[in-house]
Amino acid sequence: MQQRHRVVVIGAGFGGLAVARGLRDERIEIVVVDANNFHTFQPLLYQVATAGLGGDEIAYAVRGIFRRQRNVTFRMARVTAIDIATRTVELSAGPPLAYDTLIVAAGAVSNSFGTPGVDDHAFTLKSLEDSVALRNHVLGTFEAVAADPTTASGSALSVVVCGGGPTGVELAGGLMELFDHVLAKDFPRIDIGTARVVLVEAADRLLATFAPKSGARAERTLTRRGVEVITGAGVHSVDATSVLLTDGRRIEAGTVVWTAGVRANPLAAMLGMPLGRGQRIVVGPDLAVPGHPEVFAIGDIAVDADTPLPQVAQPAIQGGRHVAAQIVRRLDGRATEPFRYHDKGSVATIGRHDAVAELSNGFRLSGTLGWLAWLGLHILYLMGFRNRVNVVVNWTWNYFTYDRAARLLTEADVDPGPGDEAE
Amino acid sequence: MQQRHRVVVIGAGFGGLAVARGLRDERIEIVVVDANNFHTFQPLLYQVATAGLGGDEIAYAVRGIFRRQRNVTFRMARVTAIDIATRTVELSAGPPLAYDTLIVAAGAVSNSFGTPGVDDHAFTLKSLEDSVALRNHVLGTFEAVAADPTTASGSALSVVVCGGGPTGVELAGGLMELFDHVLAKDFPRIDIGTARVVLVEAADRLLATFAPKSGARAERTLTRRGVEVITGAGVHSVDATSVLLTDGRRIEAGTVVWTAGVRANPLAAMLGMPLGRGQRIVVGPDLAVPGHPEVFAIGDIAVDADTPLPQVAQPAIQGGRHVAAQIVRRLDGRATEPFRYHDKGSVATIGRHDAVAELSNGFRLSGTLGWLAWLGLHILYLMGFRNRVNVVVNWTWNYFTYDRAARLLTEADVDPGPGDEAE
Repeated sequence: MQQRHRVVVIGAGFGGLAVARGLRDERIEIVVVDANNFHTFQPLLYQVATAGLGGDEIAYAVRGIFRRQRNVTFRMARVTAIDIATRTVELSAGPPLAYDTLIVAAGAVSNSFGTPGVDDHAFTLKSLEDSVALRNHVLGTFEAVAADPTTASGSALSVVVCGGGPTGVELAGGLMELFDHVLAKDFPRIDIGTARVVLVEAADRLLATFAPKSGARAERTLTRRGVEVITGAGVHSVDATSVLLTDGRRIEAGTVVWTAGVRANPLAAMLGMPLGRGQRIVVGPDLAVPGHPEVFAIGDIAVDADTPLPQVAQPAIQGGRHVAAQIVRRLDGRATEPFRYHDKGSVATIGRHDAVAELSNGFRLSGTLGWLAWLGLHILYLMGFRNRVNVVVNWTWNYFTYDRAARLLTEADVDPGPGDEAE
Repeated sequence: MQQRHRVVVIGAGFGGLAVARGLRDERIEIVVVDANNFHTFQPLLYQVATAGLGGDEIAYAVRGIFRRQRNVTFRMARVTAIDIATRTVELSAGPPLAYDTLIVAAGAVSNSFGTPGVDDHAFTLKSLEDSVALRNHVLGTFEAVAADPTTASGSALSVVVCGGGPTGVELAGGLMELFDHVLAKDFPRIDIGTARVVLVEAADRLLATFAPKSGARAERTLTRRGVEVITGAGVHSVDATSVLLTDGRRIEAGTVVWTAGVRANPLAAMLGMPLGRGQRIVVGPDLAVPGHPEVFAIGDIAVDADTPLPQVAQPAIQGGRHVAAQIVRRLDGRATEPFRYHDKGSVATIGRHDAVAELSNGFRLSGTLGWLAWLGLHILYLMGFRNRVNVVVNWTWNYFTYDRAARLLTEADVDPGPGDEAE
């Protein structure tokens, strides 16, 4: 009996899921691998970080997503090695996975660009774990100040957000809302004015990849809401209590968040193939790795040297669909086609009911209309999940709690009782 | 200016909240202290443990609960010492708290009764942290088996629940539902029949504190759903892979849960006063500690030697209201009154739409009617929270993630970068 063609997809993000779903009608075997057993809806990470949403509201169990797609199986594991010669993927759990086609869609991680102190002292916002850690830290600064009313809060409650792209803008706006609309009431004895939100951007405007009008609007809106916006100054270094800007100013703060850039997930290097800017896997026009038509890379982890795409959702989703189509073509013995990216536009929220949206036809929306466009886009995307996902999604994201617990048992000096495993 | 009478309430559980709310109209200062910044609705812990609910759905931010009650402040901290001579409570964060009246309402923890192996190998179900740890562990056993299809699952997926009271009965039923209705679909390649749920009870019937008919009904229902019920046999010992019963039988299982009993929170000993059965603080008829009319103890942590009450919700809630009334009487210079407990009945769910309810008038309900009664009771209780709690409740329970992170930084040998703090 001939074994089916096996497609191994590394990463259950936008790109990986698009590939798997694009192959739903094929008589092949698809194995999706991810260190977490859930897909994270990254555009809403800032909501979790600013206590607007719970973590389990933006995490979707991969098994639930593919429950009705019979040709997909899932392996919860980390990739430890990729051997493109033998076409094998080694995992942290279970036996190695042989593949006929490999899709590397493991995404991106935060990029400090070597800025001193960032790795040691700054929070990032690339995963659910990041978001929860940031939120808990911020809330913890308030509880700590409340626990000792005899000590002035100083800069303990202030937050510096480094990087004025969409992520930083959304986070800064969300933090200001959290402070003024929620924490000011939860902590009535704290002078909420001491909780500054400072957004720092090295370019001359926020949202540098958007049209100048959008960046200006974002700055006006954020400023009106109390965010202190600094443009034209980069971050020189970060320490435990402050940020030093390239213009010499030092901002004291209890929390520093780095949203200034990303780089490819380091497992990109496991292919042993050339890496492009941001350490991304270089791919050809059809998104396959040069010399290896059976290996594709899509989304944040990949870059087409001729037409580099931004590391946002659309390239991953469209790339995933394209790769699914190429796999079918190859199975049919046909040549692959180049990927054509359709830039549908960009959108960034600036607050709970405010956003800037730049559509591909040049049309710009802002304010509540822009926010409704943003909301509509996200709802459309999420609807693709809802009917495949049952109540079980509520628990899945806690898997990294389990994951952390497992690491704790090997590293920490605590009582190994199961009751403490979650510690 | 005369300082207001300060009431310090240790514990934000059913009892502590009832005291604080009972004093909402008084011109006093109430300080609620809890290691977590949220109240946990314990009756639904088994739902979190069996992935029926998310953790943040049964946790309520204390600050949100008391947002409109101006005489309450909250301190998130652990109690490290109580000095009843100087009337001071020492905390893990911030300066010591002087009190005029003290309420100890810190609840109960699991009691192994010295059974060998329980502390090292069994999971408990007394806190949200417990529930999440148990759920993640159970899910992890499935993912581990799925990761290695070449190895038979053996007993890895089986769960032994030790203790057939309401908690054990509810948990066993919930686990069976999780296995048969959710995980069987999420893990199609696993033979769900290998995932046994075994409920062990030393007494001759389940729900030994209920009428015999209720226990029999619970056993019939659970058995019909696939739970293996063993009565008349206790647990001799627990090890990493099995449970040894007092009748000599050994049950192999990947997960063991201990729901066989509780004891008072160990901080009860900090009072330096006599402790009764289960290490509970002995109180007089009015719920004050003998010889210290300014110190009360209520709920699971307390016991009236003459009329010991079960460690469930009603004694805590009623006791809390009673103590609030006694504080007012003392402020008015009047003598206190003895506490009169009104047993309103008991209820235990046996499955998603099934329960046994024994009302105080002798009326028994079972099946869907009993479940509706259970649901109604809980909704009534929760409604007291809903209108004080805003969207912020979704994040609060993650505080123990932060808490664990803080402990990890002092105990573990990990890179102390903030990005890893949540580990």
